[in-house]
Amino acid sequence: MRTTVLAAALALLVAAPLHAAQPTRIPDAALARAAQLQAQALRDDTGWKVVEALTTEVGPRLAGSEADARAVEWAKARFKALGFDRVWTEPVTFPKWERRSESAQVLGAHAQPLHVTALGGSPGGTVAGEVVRFDSLEALQQAATGSLAGKIAFVDVPMPRSRSGEGYGQVGSKIRGAGPSAAARAGAIGYLMRSAGTDMHRNPHTGISRFQPGLTPIPMAALSLPDADQLARLVALGPTRVQLALDCGWNGEYTSQNVIGEITGRSKPDEVVVIGGHLDSWDLGTGAIDDGAGIAITMAAGHLIAQLPKAQRPARSIRVVAFANEEQGLWGGRAYAEAHKGKLRQHQIGAESDFGAGRIYAFSAKVPAYAQGALAQIAQALAPLGIVAREAGEGCGPDLSPFHALGMACASLAQDGTDYFDYHHTPDDTLDKIAPADLAQNVAAYVTFAYLAADADGDFGSAPKPEAAAQAGK
Amino acid sequence: MRTTVLAAALALLVAAPLHAAQPTRIPDAALARAAQLQAQALRDDTGWKVVEALTTEVGPRLAGSEADARAVEWAKARFKALGFDRVWTEPVTFPKWERRSESAQVLGAHAQPLHVTALGGSPGGTVAGEVVRFDSLEALQQAATGSLAGKIAFVDVPMPRSRSGEGYGQVGSKIRGAGPSAAARAGAIGYLMRSAGTDMHRNPHTGISRFQPGLTPIPMAALSLPDADQLARLVALGPTRVQLALDCGWNGEYTSQNVIGEITGRSKPDEVVVIGGHLDSWDLGTGAIDDGAGIAITMAAGHLIAQLPKAQRPARSIRVVAFANEEQGLWGGRAYAEAHKGKLRQHQIGAESDFGAGRIYAFSAKVPAYAQGALAQIAQALAPLGIVAREAGEGCGPDLSPFHALGMACASLAQDGTDYFDYHHTPDDTLDKIAPADLAQNVAAYVTFAYLAADADGDFGSAPKPEAAAQAGK
Repeated sequence: MRTTVLAAALALLVAAPLHAAQPTRIPDAALARAAQLQAQALRDDTGWKVVEALTTEVGPRLAGSEADARAVEWAKARFKALGFDRVWTEPVTFPKWERRSESAQVLGAHAQPLHVTALGGSPGGTVAGEVVRFDSLEALQQAATGSLAGKIAFVDVPMPRSRSGEGYGQVGSKIRGAGPSAAARAGAIGYLMRSAGTDMHRNPHTGISRFQPGLTPIPMAALSLPDADQLARLVALGPTRVQLALDCGWNGEYTSQNVIGEITGRSKPDEVVVIGGHLDSWDLGTGAIDDGAGIAITMAAGHLIAQLPKAQRPARSIRVVAFANEEQGLWGGRAYAEAHKGKLRQHQIGAESDFGAGRIYAFSAKVPAYAQGALAQIAQALAPLGIVAREAGEGCGPDLSPFHALGMACASLAQDGTDYFDYHHTPDDTLDKIAPADLAQNVAAYVTFAYLAADADGDFGSAPKPEAAAQAGK
Repeated sequence: MRTTVLAAALALLVAAPLHAAQPTRIPDAALARAAQLQAQALRDDTGWKVVEALTTEVGPRLAGSEADARAVEWAKARFKALGFDRVWTEPVTFPKWERRSESAQVLGAHAQPLHVTALGGSPGGTVAGEVVRFDSLEALQQAATGSLAGKIAFVDVPMPRSRSGEGYGQVGSKIRGAGPSAAARAGAIGYLMRSAGTDMHRNPHTGISRFQPGLTPIPMAALSLPDADQLARLVALGPTRVQLALDCGWNGEYTSQNVIGEITGRSKPDEVVVIGGHLDSWDLGTGAIDDGAGIAITMAAGHLIAQLPKAQRPARSIRVVAFANEEQGLWGGRAYAEAHKGKLRQHQIGAESDFGAGRIYAFSAKVPAYAQGALAQIAQALAPLGIVAREAGEGCGPDLSPFHALGMACASLAQDGTDYFDYHHTPDDTLDKIAPADLAQNVAAYVTFAYLAADADGDFGSAPKPEAAAQAGK
């Protein structure tokens, strides 16, 4: 998951209703069918089998790596095996970043290794210098130009734990995004940060970062939380020199694929409800919670609908997208928006699962007044799963945010992320971190939402927003 | 901690009382003084400061490494700073084992890295072959000679969690000890095992192993538990080839030191109560729970007694030993036994702390009938700390077990090890895994025990056991 600042900002621009429409309503027959699907989902282990297979057979699948191509083939085959009517791919081209090796060590009287991982996008290089610790991003940003010449900047800020994961946007990914440029601007030769994570294990958390234009990139890495504590203690003892050795970097371009499976709608097959997750993962773990779970939840939800007799299908098609390269900049999501922007109104509504496999606890969507009733019907159908309706305020997952910015209606099925940042972007993102019953609750929620939205009489307000298009197309 | 099978076995040989002695008794004044020390220990943070300093300033301290020498200097300085009357070292010579690099990967259609760590004592080498999984040690031991030619043996047995840690002796260290030889005997080119641990993090657990005489050593490594699960799933899918690349091995000899601090007794200074822990650690973590905690607990207990006016000191001396190279075969403990066997009767009783920093919950010692009353007095003094007396059955910690085997009386202060094997011998053995209040409870127990034992009128049965001497001297 990346922060969806853009999507959140755009959500504040409440669009005036573009349709002078009848209220959108969900037929009783659809509600009855969705209740059956929901109950079936809670007993079904398709989601578990999907995430088990992806994380075992493909394993880590860094965008642009050899495993990226294997993941694409795996997803195509899995969609077909799960009974999707149409399966196709759409190309996604991006710069390729490679991680080859990484290490760090304290030099001198207290010599010892430190556990680090390069931030995605880091250049390679070996640097050694005295560490200057900052207890806030702002303190680093205030460092005078040149004041860190020959030094390694170390930003050491704890990230709070919460169900919503808001500490990640407010602290973790913010520091990861802005810290390296601030360090480079002050003249530092390297950048270290306390991982954007909430665990106390020896696993540093990676994640993408980029330097602002005009700055010379410097090696940038995250320390595990115990290592950040250790380095803080050493710095408190006296001047502390560290060597950071990263062999990694950008290396040409790569073309991966968004892999798409679709279940043809009963009566309006050209209109779609789009759900999905991202197929790529960071290389350190096996991408179970980020985002094998999202792939599994939405593939399994689609599968349950695909198994229905044609006459029981929803009116619209259900489209499940396994997005390429979310982690390094929403490449798959942006390619999808670009490729489908001419058919925005045919996208009834979207929702992406990309926050692990914790139970869904809240449902929300920002929709026009005429669709509020239908939204309430969906919320009521989700209530047996322990999901409450709440005021909209969020986007719809990172990969759908570019299309949402263009005007596609979006829903949020908020997952409990209390433990998410214990594992996120670390070697510990493995299958055992997923609870099968929680995963099934997610599938039940997605199949309920997708079926009802796809069978609604009326729409949820998808319509082009010309003024946002240029921004989102970036 | 290593298993103390030898000590446990010898503890079963209930020695007939060698003294036709008066009952051993602890004077009331000592009981009063011990109660004061206990209360003081619970408020004191010396233990925390010691383990913080050792794990931060020295960090990992693999026996024979550059950090081993730094640890020895650190311990000498710390004993002096803590007010010990006498500080000295005694040489301990052992073969040096080095870890340089280690990696493993699944080859072929499901290519992916596996997190492994070489077992201590492993030879280096890169091997690749099909993995044969065994769900018990016995199954591997029954494999016919030559049946694993060209293959990598994989023993995949979960280790149960328990307060006493008994699963380690019964499963974890047993498989680590016996598995490699069984694999080599069957012709395997490499050995993998599910780590002897109870966590589900991506941290493999190292630990010493050795090949039986006549066998050609093969590379041997432990997989983290998530990796063991992953490999088991892959093997279930079909033939799975793995490459194991270890750069490590034995490399000459090294002489380290047992570092000893002593507080001179009031009236019988040549007699000692000996407590301690081991100064070395595995290289992966910073040796906080194994065994920085033991060093800290016993140094801090000694320090509290050292602060007393001379007239309030116990009759006997308190000796704290920071043992060298416990991890690779009780080298420091065996050197101590050899160096001091002529003064065995002057060793009143011993106890070693080497099972982390969990709260002590039970006290026991196997002593002659005439010392049972004094033992009960100590147990009663420990009761306010939540410690119960129980039947003896254990030794006194790994490093004192060779001397216990020769006849020194030993006590066990059993720590809660429920979480110990989540971190033991992994990168995760770091300072943050220690709870300061639990550490202080340990110090309180050790200072109570040491003071009372050292001030007892009479002994606890230390006396040479000639028949065991040859065995223990090995």
